[in-house]
Order: sequence, then C-alpha cells, then structure tokens
Amino acid sequence: MFDNKEKTNLERLGEFGLIAHITKAIVLTENSTLKGIGDDAAVLDFSGKKTLVSTDLLLEGVHFDLRYVPLKHLGYKAVQVNLSDIYAMNGIASQITFSIGLSSRFPLEAVEELYAGALLACKSYNVDLVGGDTSTSVQGLVISVTSIGYAQEADIVYRDGAQEGDLVCVSGDLGGAYVGLQLLEREKRIFLENPSIQPDLEGKDYIVERQLKPEARKDIVQLLATIGVKPTAMIDISDGLASEILHICESSAKGCKLYEEKIPIDPMTYDTAREFGLDPTVCALSGGEDYELLFTISQSDYDKVKNQPDISVIGHITEKTAGCELISKSGHVHPITAQGWNAFKSAQ
Amino acid sequence: MFDNKEKTNLERLGEFGLIAHITKAIVLTENSTLKGIGDDAAVLDFSGKKTLVSTDLLLEGVHFDLRYVPLKHLGYKAVQVNLSDIYAMNGIASQITFSIGLSSRFPLEAVEELYAGALLACKSYNVDLVGGDTSTSVQGLVISVTSIGYAQEADIVYRDGAQEGDLVCVSGDLGGAYVGLQLLEREKRIFLENPSIQPDLEGKDYIVERQLKPEARKDIVQLLATIGVKPTAMIDISDGLASEILHICESSAKGCKLYEEKIPIDPMTYDTAREFGLDPTVCALSGGEDYELLFTISQSDYDKVKNQPDISVIGHITEKTAGCELISKSGHVHPITAQGWNAFKSAQ
Repeated sequence: MFDNKEKTNLERLGEFGLIAHITKAIVLTENSTLKGIGDDAAVLDFSGKKTLVSTDLLLEGVHFDLRYVPLKHLGYKAVQVNLSDIYAMNGIASQITFSIGLSSRFPLEAVEELYAGALLACKSYNVDLVGGDTSTSVQGLVISVTSIGYAQEADIVYRDGAQEGDLVCVSGDLGGAYVGLQLLEREKRIFLENPSIQPDLEGKDYIVERQLKPEARKDIVQLLATIGVKPTAMIDISDGLASEILHICESSAKGCKLYEEKIPIDPMTYDTAREFGLDPTVCALSGGEDYELLFTISQSDYDKVKNQPDISVIGHITEKTAGCELISKSGHVHPITAQGWNAFKSAQ
Repeated sequence: MFDNKEKTNLERLGEFGLIAHITKAIVLTENSTLKGIGDDAAVLDFSGKKTLVSTDLLLEGVHFDLRYVPLKHLGYKAVQVNLSDIYAMNGIASQITFSIGLSSRFPLEAVEELYAGALLACKSYNVDLVGGDTSTSVQGLVISVTSIGYAQEADIVYRDGAQEGDLVCVSGDLGGAYVGLQLLEREKRIFLENPSIQPDLEGKDYIVERQLKPEARKDIVQLLATIGVKPTAMIDISDGLASEILHICESSAKGCKLYEEKIPIDPMTYDTAREFGLDPTVCALSGGEDYELLFTISQSDYDKVKNQPDISVIGHITEKTAGCELISKSGHVHPITAQGWNAFKSAQ
C-alpha cells in the first residue's frame, strides 16, 4: 500500500505532535459545533443546554495488562477515564457508548465481568449506557468509550482561560496511580518467575485502587458549583501534573510557578515510591492516570477554596515569558517539562 | 484471570446473542435518554431538538484488509458506515469523533491518508470531526467512530413502527458491495501467487466502489422529507437485506412477504455474481455492506414513492404469525433467515 522510504516516523513525532499535525487539516463548519478538537470534550449547541462529547480508545498491551487487571475493574476504569473528560469541562456526564472488540479466547463470562464493571460505574455516576458496538478481534481486547454530557454555556470551562495571578488548584492527591502500577508490575514479575508465590499487596489497598479503580471527580464539579467558584481553566490529569499544566499554560498563553511542597501526595504513595527508589514528586508530576482535576481560579475565590480538604492550591499563573517552573522544597527552580506516561516508563 | 471450563462459548452465542445478553443488564435512568441500545442510534433529549449518537469499531483483519483497501478509502468508509446509522433514524448527522490505534509500522503519511478520507466524507456530508483519540496499537489498525446528529422528535423513525399492510421499500440497489469484495479477494489471491500480475478490475468500477467507497443515503432522508413521507420503520443495510428486514419485523412484532423479482440489483452486480458462480439474490439478501436504507411506509404513501428511481417497493408487512417469507421468481416460498456477513463468508 505504501513504502516506508523517506516517510516521517510516527515514534519520533510523538502523540501530541501527531494530534497537532492531524488537527491542522480539520475545518469546522457546523453552526452547532462550539468547540471541536483541542479540549477534553467537544461542545455542541443543539439548543438550550450544550451537549458535551468525549471519546477514548483502550487497547490491550498498551493501556492495560490483563495479567493483573481484573476485567470488572477494567470496565469500571474505562468508563471513569472517559467521564473524567466531561467533568473537566465543568459539565455533567449523562450517557456513554461502550464498544468492545474481543477474540474467541474470551468466554461470555469475561464479557459479563467487563460490562458489569462498566455498568457499575454508570450506576454510581448516574450515566446511561446508550450504545456501542461489539466485534470480533483477531488479537487482544479493544475498548472504545464515548461520553456525552451537558452544561449551561456559561458554566463550561475550557483550557484556555487562565489569567496572570490566578491560583493553580488540584483535587485529591497525585502519584498514587503510578506507584500502584509499580506494585502490580513487581508482583507480576514475581508471579511469572514463580507462580506459586501469592501477590503481596497487603496494606497497599489505597494505591492499588488508585491504579485499578480510579474515581472521576464529579464531586469536585458539584462542590465548585456549591461554593460558587467557576474555574478560569480546567483539565483532568491523565498524563501527569506536568503535562497537564503545560496544556493549560500553552492554551492560555501564560506561564506558571508551582511549589513542590504544595503538591498533595498521600503518605502511602510517598512511602511506597521511596521503597521503589522513586522520587514521589516525579511520580506526581509525570506518573499520570490519577484522574484528578487541575484548575485555575481567580485570586478573589481563594477564601472559598482554602478550607476545602479536597482542593490544594499548588501555585499561580504568571506571564508567558516567565515560563513554567517548579520551585523545589530546597528553593531551586526547575523548568517543567512534558514527560508523559510513556516517556516516563521508557526512562525507567 | 479466568479459566475456560464450563463457560459459555462466545462463537456459539454469536454477535446478536451476545448483544441481547449484555443489554439485559442495562437499566436506563436518565430523563434525557429517550432511546438507548436497540436501534441504529441512541436518542437523547437535551432540549428542543433531539441528539442522535451512534458508534462503530473497525478492526484490521476483521473489518478490512489493508492489502486491497487504500487507507483514504478506509477513512472515508469508516465515516460513511457510521453516518448511515444517523440517517437510518431519519436524522441529520452533524458531528463525528474519530479515534485510531496504530502500530509503528504506519508512517505519518499513512495516518494522513486515513484522515484525508475521513475528512473528505465529513466535507461531503456537512459533518464536523469534533473529537477522537490516538493511540499506539500492538494489534494492527483500530478505528472507532462515533456520530452525533439531530432530528425533531416527531421525525425520528425507529425500527419498531412497521404496521400490517405497510409497503417494504429499499433505496438504491443491493449486493454490489459483496460482489465487489469477491473481485478484490480474487485479485489479492492472484497477487499473492504472482506479485508481477497487475489487478484486473477493468470496467468493474461500480461494484469495486460499492465495496471500497460506499455513500450513506443522506439524500434519501432529504428526499423523503421533500415528498412528505415519514417511514413507519427504518434501518440501514449493513448485514444484508435478510438480516435487516428480520430486525424490523422482530422489533415491530410483524411478518413480511418480499418478492425476489422486486429486489433491485445492478446489472454489473448481477453479471459478476454469475461469473463467480454466486446467486445474485443471495448476494443481495446476505452480502451486506451496501449501506442502503430499508424502510416501511403506509400504503397511502405509495403514490409519493412509486416514480422515485432511487426507491424500490419490494414487498409488504404481514401479521407476525405469517412469518417472514421470500417469494421467488418461480413462485416458490422461502422463509427468510438471518445470515449475516460472517455466516455467509464461512459458508462459501
């Protein structure tokens, strides 16, 4: 079909480079499209409330390893990961479509487990599963989820609204999903070497759950509405804090200063990272898969968030020329660089 | 993760059995969900006009063979196949999300070709590409498309509205996509045996295009609106006429009588099927991938469609107990059986 001589290598281009390249060719023409590619979800104006749509593709061997991910957890997580994008627009998710491709090595009971997890997530978050596609796969499991949600136009938060002086906030704590993955990977290696040894995850429930069963932060969207705060910019943390704050700064044409000591890290995450010889801050910055919300707010809203235990203020927005910087606990200044999930893993 | 002892075999259950099984566990709770799984697209009521959403998953080695499908055509077809579901609701498609998973054997130029095809389809049909996901794949090319569209509630056509005495209509002609595939498969075999022989598709443009570059029938939706006909039931033909009419009859709790001599088959489809020793009627009934619209209309609307060259009346709806029957050219009565794409292929 094509030869590979004098072609641009995809690996060299990277995912973001590929997306930037692809989206250049897209022209929006429908009146009902308020926002297409470039944020967590598309915003469509059919009438009255706005419709939000987001989609994810999860592939075996790339996004999950069935040797340590139970299928029910996988179904649950696949939905959460996708709902998270709707919440990151400050919207409420209301429907999903859920598609799977699977080979005949899976029995019906495996599919039931997968759907049971997806439906449990739907039930917990008041979301209807309204469509999907089921297909044979010649190799491995493929999952595709599309979420649809809604919001009043005035409530929608994009990535590009951060202003100089705004405070940078994050929900929950970071790095747990990545450290949980390190634990699961270690147990897998031990099991492969000696299948008679049982996994030792004793007392590590929290970080294992952060990896296997993340919860999208619908509660934060509701909390922000309750306390009367509309973020100026928001994104969910799928690739790690560093990558996501750079998205906000780039979209908003701003810089930022983050303070290492302010980054929320759970004690179990911290201690387990140390056991693995990992820097807990690096796990928070580049680990990813935490599905917390990262957002910026006006300084005038500080009093409304300062006593919220689930929200941490970790820095502030600066002018673009100041760059994006992390101030370490020792006071050193480090430039923040995009080091996504895959880059981090291969650097290990 | 699970053993296969005493499990239900997926192959034995089949796709429709699997879908029926999965959907039993789904409970719809959102007020905005008017219709979930069970038709060509989900119907969501956000306000005013209704939102239509449909999704498809296309996997290399299952849905397409890159040895004879140019990537641009593949991108175009992936979109058409999905838009077809929105038109089959009597709606207008307005947006799609387009996700791909691909391995590093694909250079950037290959991805560009794929997207160029998808965007060409969008442009021709006034549809915006508003989202997607791009991922590495270890298992070949994966494409997932979700379409979103709209319709006035009163205009939406479901599968379950066929009434006794209604006329069964089909747009365009049938069987061409399947016969086109036979041609492409033959040329692939010849090429694999002797790579120096060039493909011989001379004069077969129409049926090769029916397979490689199908056109969803937006024009039929517009035509029906112009002539003032609202079908009582409608579905698009992806699995073949037989499978689709059975869906309408089952959803509507009715039977039908179709007449072989009325089924529209293009002369090139007819002649090429004969060359391959295939029965052209079987190709129309079970070949699939024609993406024409199959619909039922009230007898009182007959005068409005009888002179439309793109619409053929091929039978009528009967009471359920009469069953679903095909009357052959020789006057014999055959029960119509669901013989989808895969079943047909393996029966060859």
